[in-house]
Amino acid sequence: MTAVTHDLAHDAIRAVDWSNGAVKLLDQRVLPQREEYLILEEAPALANAIRMMAVRGAPAIGIAAAYGVVLAARLAYRRAKNDWRSAIEVDIERLRAARPTAVNLHWALQRMQEKFVEVKNDPEPILLAEAKRIHDEDITANKRMGALGAELIHGKTDVLTHCNTGSLATGGFGTALGVIRSAYARGVIQSIYACETRPWLQGARLTAWELMRDKIPVTVIADSAAAHLMQQRCVRWVIVGADRIARNGDLANKIGTYSLALSARAHDLKFMTVAPTSSLDMSAATGADIPIEDRPSGELLELEGHRLAAEGALAWNPVFDVTPARLIDFLVTEKGVVPAPDAAKLAALMQDAHS
Amino acid sequence: MTAVTHDLAHDAIRAVDWSNGAVKLLDQRVLPQREEYLILEEAPALANAIRMMAVRGAPAIGIAAAYGVVLAARLAYRRAKNDWRSAIEVDIERLRAARPTAVNLHWALQRMQEKFVEVKNDPEPILLAEAKRIHDEDITANKRMGALGAELIHGKTDVLTHCNTGSLATGGFGTALGVIRSAYARGVIQSIYACETRPWLQGARLTAWELMRDKIPVTVIADSAAAHLMQQRCVRWVIVGADRIARNGDLANKIGTYSLALSARAHDLKFMTVAPTSSLDMSAATGADIPIEDRPSGELLELEGHRLAAEGALAWNPVFDVTPARLIDFLVTEKGVVPAPDAAKLAALMQDAHS
Repeated sequence: MTAVTHDLAHDAIRAVDWSNGAVKLLDQRVLPQREEYLILEEAPALANAIRMMAVRGAPAIGIAAAYGVVLAARLAYRRAKNDWRSAIEVDIERLRAARPTAVNLHWALQRMQEKFVEVKNDPEPILLAEAKRIHDEDITANKRMGALGAELIHGKTDVLTHCNTGSLATGGFGTALGVIRSAYARGVIQSIYACETRPWLQGARLTAWELMRDKIPVTVIADSAAAHLMQQRCVRWVIVGADRIARNGDLANKIGTYSLALSARAHDLKFMTVAPTSSLDMSAATGADIPIEDRPSGELLELEGHRLAAEGALAWNPVFDVTPARLIDFLVTEKGVVPAPDAAKLAALMQDAHS
Repeated sequence: MTAVTHDLAHDAIRAVDWSNGAVKLLDQRVLPQREEYLILEEAPALANAIRMMAVRGAPAIGIAAAYGVVLAARLAYRRAKNDWRSAIEVDIERLRAARPTAVNLHWALQRMQEKFVEVKNDPEPILLAEAKRIHDEDITANKRMGALGAELIHGKTDVLTHCNTGSLATGGFGTALGVIRSAYARGVIQSIYACETRPWLQGARLTAWELMRDKIPVTVIADSAAAHLMQQRCVRWVIVGADRIARNGDLANKIGTYSLALSARAHDLKFMTVAPTSSLDMSAATGADIPIEDRPSGELLELEGHRLAAEGALAWNPVFDVTPARLIDFLVTEKGVVPAPDAAKLAALMQDAHS
């Protein structure tokens, strides 16, 4: 019972929810200064919220998009009772196009669309039930991954994580932060280092806020200090999430992950990535097939309207990178742990998942 | 003549100067928004300007400290004509303690102190001449290193640099940026990528400003995007400076340099460090003997008084790291180029330098 109590004590935040017939998002653009919620009743506004990163994190985006289909279907059905399946297409494309790298978005939309055949009249009850199922399954998967990942960690260690992969990035509990929550509750993690995660500062703004909120000790470092940290302190694990995993195990995740994986290998640290199988894209042969989002240079050169860089300076702002499978020691999914992932092991995992 | 014209055209900035009997510093804390100069007439104020990073960069700190000794000697001589050598001690210690990692500070102070024996009456003329010599020699060394480093680069390449190692960080022209200036003038560099260099943003604020000012094309990236850049674009060189080099070739430089060196090696890029021999510390056997400065966490968690991270979050803010000699392909000094530096080669370099 202790573990459960701990898990509950360390898991108080929900970033995406269905509330009174609308989608309720904790606006991650203004955290940690302000805790504000957006109430969205139409899919285009939700797509915009995804694009503007009011909600972010691959699983959370997928869940938000699933609820977005409910909003879209409600409106389409109101407008065209017999033809709502066509009327909804534009909104679904809007949701799909909101962010390019996280595959969970596509996965969730497809799963919602597969439910269309069951609908006889009003689509809302069936689609809402499916969206809630996607949401609940995500939390369940995260708790399962938390337990599986925590079992891999022995002794007492500090861990390094990147970006935000917690309750804010998922349906709840988190992927990499879920493992960290579970391992901390088991007493095998002493302390967590969080890369601040430029340019959007998900680490400094969101991970620090979330872990402090859930009473887990966290120390922020500059992204560029990670290799020095590994050289100087007793960090034995790097634990991160994934926005998309190719079928050979190559991993797209927040910019900087690749560099952490290179540094981890150079220091003989273990590199764990934690992602539900909804992040696996079996249609991508390798990481080269994963689209990498470049975001506006203003995110790098300005901060809250304050100009950081020299006026007129150019910037390149890719917000994901690809870590090759050979640098990954463990992929933790809700279906099981895959050590040193490769094409054969991932094919077997998905086979088992479907059987 | 073309190279000279180019060099002049691309070298317009002086961050440290002696002007009307005072030290004139371009205040790097407010660049690039404002171009403001500090006029300092007393050594404690100058020590404080070094500590607060109004002037930064290992060679520039050394030059500023040398001029600081002139200010200190003038005041000490006014107060105690016969005993100024004792009266000056407190100020010299203040200057020495201003920053711990850059060894040029110690080197410049020692060189100034060695001149004390030549002084008969008023110390100012002799000491000012020596400080100006240190300053001039630094610019000459930088131009020499610029030429030597540029000769190593063949074909057409993009280069990646870190922090600011230009006119702003030196007496003028720069170390790593001096090589980049020279190589750009020779037409072997197409484009420069500059890491923004958290937390102080020397890359985004200073390097971008300096290169744009001197009409050299520059693109800012997040520090964490460096490995992705190496994977995706045609960067064949990483060129950085050094704050202190141990006698085995281990290199202390701005936090993030070590990570760049690891990534460069993983991608088969060449890693060049450019530093005058005044950055060599023959008393440090290895990088482990170099003191690494931790600066206040506020530099990471706040920006211009604006809180970035969650309230109450802890941070660790080491601002230098150590790159082991085995990751360095070329050390460029004003005495010559050392490929794959090690203890024997550096001993030979310094032997030649003294003979």
